[in-house]
Amino acid sequence: MRLIAAEVLAIGDELLYGQTLDTNSHYISGELDKVGIKVVRRTTIGDRVGDILKAFEEAEARADIVIITGGLGPTSDDLTKPCLATYFNCEIKIHPEALQDVTEFFSRRGRELTELNRQQAALPVCCEKITNPFGTAPGMWFDRNDKIFVSMPGVPHEMRHMVTDEIIPRLLKKFRLPVIMHQVIRTVGIGESFLAERISSWESALPPHIKLAYLPGEGGVALRLTAIGDADAIRKEFDMLIRAIEPLAGEYIFGYTGDPLEVVVGRLLLERNLTLSVAESCTGGYLSHLITSIPGSSRYFEGSIIAYATEIKAKELNVMRATLESHGAVSEPTIREMATMVRKKFNTSIGVATSGVAGPGGGTPEKPVGTVWIAYADKEKVVAKKLHLSKDRLVNIKLTSTAVLNLIRQNVK
Amino acid sequence: MRLIAAEVLAIGDELLYGQTLDTNSHYISGELDKVGIKVVRRTTIGDRVGDILKAFEEAEARADIVIITGGLGPTSDDLTKPCLATYFNCEIKIHPEALQDVTEFFSRRGRELTELNRQQAALPVCCEKITNPFGTAPGMWFDRNDKIFVSMPGVPHEMRHMVTDEIIPRLLKKFRLPVIMHQVIRTVGIGESFLAERISSWESALPPHIKLAYLPGEGGVALRLTAIGDADAIRKEFDMLIRAIEPLAGEYIFGYTGDPLEVVVGRLLLERNLTLSVAESCTGGYLSHLITSIPGSSRYFEGSIIAYATEIKAKELNVMRATLESHGAVSEPTIREMATMVRKKFNTSIGVATSGVAGPGGGTPEKPVGTVWIAYADKEKVVAKKLHLSKDRLVNIKLTSTAVLNLIRQNVK
Repeated sequence: MRLIAAEVLAIGDELLYGQTLDTNSHYISGELDKVGIKVVRRTTIGDRVGDILKAFEEAEARADIVIITGGLGPTSDDLTKPCLATYFNCEIKIHPEALQDVTEFFSRRGRELTELNRQQAALPVCCEKITNPFGTAPGMWFDRNDKIFVSMPGVPHEMRHMVTDEIIPRLLKKFRLPVIMHQVIRTVGIGESFLAERISSWESALPPHIKLAYLPGEGGVALRLTAIGDADAIRKEFDMLIRAIEPLAGEYIFGYTGDPLEVVVGRLLLERNLTLSVAESCTGGYLSHLITSIPGSSRYFEGSIIAYATEIKAKELNVMRATLESHGAVSEPTIREMATMVRKKFNTSIGVATSGVAGPGGGTPEKPVGTVWIAYADKEKVVAKKLHLSKDRLVNIKLTSTAVLNLIRQNVK
Repeated sequence: MRLIAAEVLAIGDELLYGQTLDTNSHYISGELDKVGIKVVRRTTIGDRVGDILKAFEEAEARADIVIITGGLGPTSDDLTKPCLATYFNCEIKIHPEALQDVTEFFSRRGRELTELNRQQAALPVCCEKITNPFGTAPGMWFDRNDKIFVSMPGVPHEMRHMVTDEIIPRLLKKFRLPVIMHQVIRTVGIGESFLAERISSWESALPPHIKLAYLPGEGGVALRLTAIGDADAIRKEFDMLIRAIEPLAGEYIFGYTGDPLEVVVGRLLLERNLTLSVAESCTGGYLSHLITSIPGSSRYFEGSIIAYATEIKAKELNVMRATLESHGAVSEPTIREMATMVRKKFNTSIGVATSGVAGPGGGTPEKPVGTVWIAYADKEKVVAKKLHLSKDRLVNIKLTSTAVLNLIRQNVK
């Protein structure tokens, strides 16, 4: 079977000049990879007609599929649409259905359509419209001599919905793609190199047609197995590999799907009919945000107190002033009281808490930046844990939140 | 003065397959832009000799400077070094100084040098070594016919130190660079197309040597002016343009620097000696996270109550049960009480609140997904505002948080 090749093209001066981080190309690469389309190159160019047309030509020579993001806004520096019309040699006209979409988009928001908005419904006549339910700029699908060009707006969430809901299904219909199988093994609470040491015998015994990748992130290290071939046979091999890795690293594994830890923990709470409340200091709301980013979290999450000021820890969380004074806000006695108190106050099955020195300021010789306490409390026990994290404020906030979710996972079992 | 052009090249299958987000190219773009080097293209390719050599050739044709990251590790899939040796037609030999660097690197960590590590000190003889104080793979600097090729490892913090400490100073010495000036104008509370209409007279009167870009995001729409030339003259033009845009869109403008809204609002509170507390429902902690992501926020932010469950709104925030029962949690009377009550409870100058239907579930005909109430309360007034947002949960959470920050900005003035 011939491999189908794709090139991903991002357009925008703001990318080239280092003002906006391009996460779109990364997302598209991953989605194409999942369905067995080989990304052979990614290119980023600025808002100049000559550069854009040249990039189209080069990409078409290299790939079967060219996926373009950016340059579809209503303003004068948005050149992708006119360039596509030039490249495919056809005129731009108001697309009646697109006009209806954009009109409805604005009327739902109680706003009238401006002429600029109306122009967003104009499309090259040689393309098919790709509906954009989350924004005003429709996507475009061009098919010429079995080469596919897809153009989407650069707004990440608009683009993402279009990729999963429209583009991938269309590509699956258009091309005969190989069966690529992925198996993810998600771990938390262990670093990449330590994990690699633990599973080195398992890794070196992998058959040559199964590829392993380490994907480290703030929510843990994921392992991904990839294989091309007969789906049933690979499924069986993956299942055997899962059974074989569990004795080596099972305590760190929280799932075998794409679900992040906050989803797995939410499901655990729901299954056991448990409710959760949170007391946050150094994470400042991020832990609660992770939990509530999951639809349906209101079924187990009651609420939080973010006790940023020490006074709030005493007044709202009822942490004893004596504890705060003799041990400080970042200490085991304080964190144990925080978790216990928020649980009591919110009348939940479980209470968790965070308190630490997120940085960049606030460190002392005994409690340097990156010193964090976390705790878990239920009706039977209180578990506290000290973390030694990094010098980076945001990294510390994220790692702490992940560590708390892991503490829940370990203790709810 | 001739413009110096650069191309940024990232090498690695893990990038193309969507496993690792490439933040290196973004960082390098920004650093080159700051010193007036124009990035004309960014390219990402995989670990294949043919693709790498082709990309070198194409980049050299387009640019004066080619900056390469990745593919310098000790393993067999790291091809950048042999490809550079082939491209510049010279052999690879152990570089005595590089060998000393890598030997010291390992001895400082109490480890012995393996043969693989030793090979990292081998460099093409036609390049200059770039020291890598944070890792084992040195960088390389090639200068042929006044075209510069720089190769660095893909590990972000190693690369960053090399760029700022070695590469940029060398480029400044090598090329006579123009002054590129940027002026950012940050707005919030108005969509891109509405802003464009408001400032259309201003935009069409821009002199041809000043370029305008719209940069929309969840924290508002930023405008960016760019010009090349005499710094003093452009500075004056930028100042005039700022004075000219203010009568058209001043109410939406919150700053002229890179600072996001949460920094600007934090500064406003600090200057006025005001303190803040937050009551969150639909934003579930994200608003507090935005505020506390800023170092030093503890000087004005006291804390929050995340009242996710209705019961918590009554019990912890003291919203009257009659209000909740007759108007519901997503309503003007409830949001006004939430802001007022959190302010009182936390004894702060200002209280703000969010309550809405973030989605995807929970919508009704009267209160569809995307219906959100926000409020601001200080000792003199309470201001509430209804928002009609999107169908996307995370987008709604982020847009609501931005809207609350904007409400603070508007009312603290």
